[in-house]
Amino acid sequence: MANSDGQGDSRASVTMENVARAAGVSRALVSKAFRGKGVSEASRAAIFAAADQLGYRHNRLAASLASQQTDTIGFFFLDLYNEVFADIYTGLARVVERANKRIVLAIGDPRRGDGREAVESLLDMRVDAIVLAGTLLADEQLEALNRSTPLVAVTRFVAGIDSAGVDDRLGGRLATEHLVQLGHRRIAYISYHRPEQGFSYLERARGYADVLADAGASPIVAYTDFTRESAREAARELLTSPDRPTAIFAHNDLLALGVIEAAADLGLEVPRDLSIVGYDDIQVGSIPGIGLTTVNHRAQRLGEVAAEMALAPRDAAQQVARHRMFDPELIVRATTGPAPE
Amino acid sequence: MANSDGQGDSRASVTMENVARAAGVSRALVSKAFRGKGVSEASRAAIFAAADQLGYRHNRLAASLASQQTDTIGFFFLDLYNEVFADIYTGLARVVERANKRIVLAIGDPRRGDGREAVESLLDMRVDAIVLAGTLLADEQLEALNRSTPLVAVTRFVAGIDSAGVDDRLGGRLATEHLVQLGHRRIAYISYHRPEQGFSYLERARGYADVLADAGASPIVAYTDFTRESAREAARELLTSPDRPTAIFAHNDLLALGVIEAAADLGLEVPRDLSIVGYDDIQVGSIPGIGLTTVNHRAQRLGEVAAEMALAPRDAAQQVARHRMFDPELIVRATTGPAPE
Repeated sequence: MANSDGQGDSRASVTMENVARAAGVSRALVSKAFRGKGVSEASRAAIFAAADQLGYRHNRLAASLASQQTDTIGFFFLDLYNEVFADIYTGLARVVERANKRIVLAIGDPRRGDGREAVESLLDMRVDAIVLAGTLLADEQLEALNRSTPLVAVTRFVAGIDSAGVDDRLGGRLATEHLVQLGHRRIAYISYHRPEQGFSYLERARGYADVLADAGASPIVAYTDFTRESAREAARELLTSPDRPTAIFAHNDLLALGVIEAAADLGLEVPRDLSIVGYDDIQVGSIPGIGLTTVNHRAQRLGEVAAEMALAPRDAAQQVARHRMFDPELIVRATTGPAPE
Repeated sequence: MANSDGQGDSRASVTMENVARAAGVSRALVSKAFRGKGVSEASRAAIFAAADQLGYRHNRLAASLASQQTDTIGFFFLDLYNEVFADIYTGLARVVERANKRIVLAIGDPRRGDGREAVESLLDMRVDAIVLAGTLLADEQLEALNRSTPLVAVTRFVAGIDSAGVDDRLGGRLATEHLVQLGHRRIAYISYHRPEQGFSYLERARGYADVLADAGASPIVAYTDFTRESAREAARELLTSPDRPTAIFAHNDLLALGVIEAAADLGLEVPRDLSIVGYDDIQVGSIPGIGLTTVNHRAQRLGEVAAEMALAPRDAAQQVARHRMFDPELIVRATTGPAPE
């Protein structure tokens, strides 16, 4: 139904002038309103109503290309099924919104790649900075990306990149010491991070290995992919082996949920036959019927700290990256108990 | 450390020419590579390596302003803590990525508003279309937004907007009939959608009311906000009232988890003292220890269908919106049982 008066193309043709006329204000005031500048409540309401009416879309990005600022922070995170990222986002959003900036997100698919495409979509959107939670990109890739857009890594430490996380080696120690104190010696660790990746995510495994060495016990390590289902299979394999472990420490709560399922599959009672410790303290873990013992790493606080860094990026002259590290905390619930006789 | 050769401002100053020179190819080829056009694998690798090296950021958006296409689909969803949106996203991402397009996301905070700001951030990014899951915007707002960017609503029906969902009235019937067949008569419904909103989300409540009317029982309805914690409080109130319900049907699984917590708080055993039905069939509901009876609405499939619509938007001349409606399915697990004597 396109016709000569542009009816069929109305999306593109409505201008700021049209909105100004419809709202009975100046074009400058419309521009101010859309840039979030001081405009009276009444004018703002009239302008937005007129814009809605006309189907006007403010081209904030075109405007911002000149200023090189989009007032938008990008947030990449690894996996929508892992609730820990919701906690990090909650903290992040609190700080970013208080600063009157916006957030756009892109999510990886850890089952199919390292998330580079998702991060690139944020770069293309010209966000002012990107916060990355759970990224699987190599250190060198992050350093290269950091040259074009400031990055902040959450739960991971990379030289040269601003970061916020907890002392994961201590977290791994806390989880494993708790099990050793309960009398466990055959303690397995399951994770999706393999040593050859060399990521700082391996610190949890180091803390685990430290404690086992002190206790004179041998590590039993199994690798999974990123899904609960994969953890369930890995745990089933461990639990049907001769000399099966009496406790499993999972790299995170999502994997620990898979271990709980494996125990049920095999008719094992938790914690009588098997103790389980997770990591993250996701909210779902506290539900009665689950009651997961875990390590809390203050995910919301990490999100807040990351947001503060993203809002005040280092300038190019500042060579030293900022790292903030917090202490993790063991949360004992119902999935851990004394080792079976 | 800014100096006259632009060192301190390298982020802005690297051009496509620089990349072309470093990669030993033409500027036109660099442009093609960044627009995702046919370029040999070897050239593409050389170009991207050079771009990384130089910290070049391709201004895909500035380029796309002319073509009016960003090859990016926006996805808004209501709440990161509700896993149903992860399922919808999974289906959506599968289809969008197969079409070599990208997704950016914006998330509402249902505790603080209707998510208009988040949707606007996607409009500002000039995405080609927006898929909205769980939106709380009024019908008129959606219709106005749809004039500037094509929208697809998931789990909600709005005249004039493309949509994909299930027959929620049937879903509400299935859940409630299951409870009636188990002998329950005092069946409460908890939801965060109030009748005055007039949304299609109310269909579940209608199905519930239909069945109670047929059974000659009276509806007992309680309202919550969007959190599990709020459902826990609402359920605690219901369950400490005289003549307390023997069953609770929750608007979604997230709220049902709060009801499970309330039952535990009060020392009620599920399902002996209280039966609970959710809605969504989130993955966490299937974990042993939870075993939530629920209604599945094929969230991944809804995401796929929504993506197909978003990738092939109606043209302006096409007046009739496309609606796709599927049938929901009752999934019986461990939280429902016979009504207490």
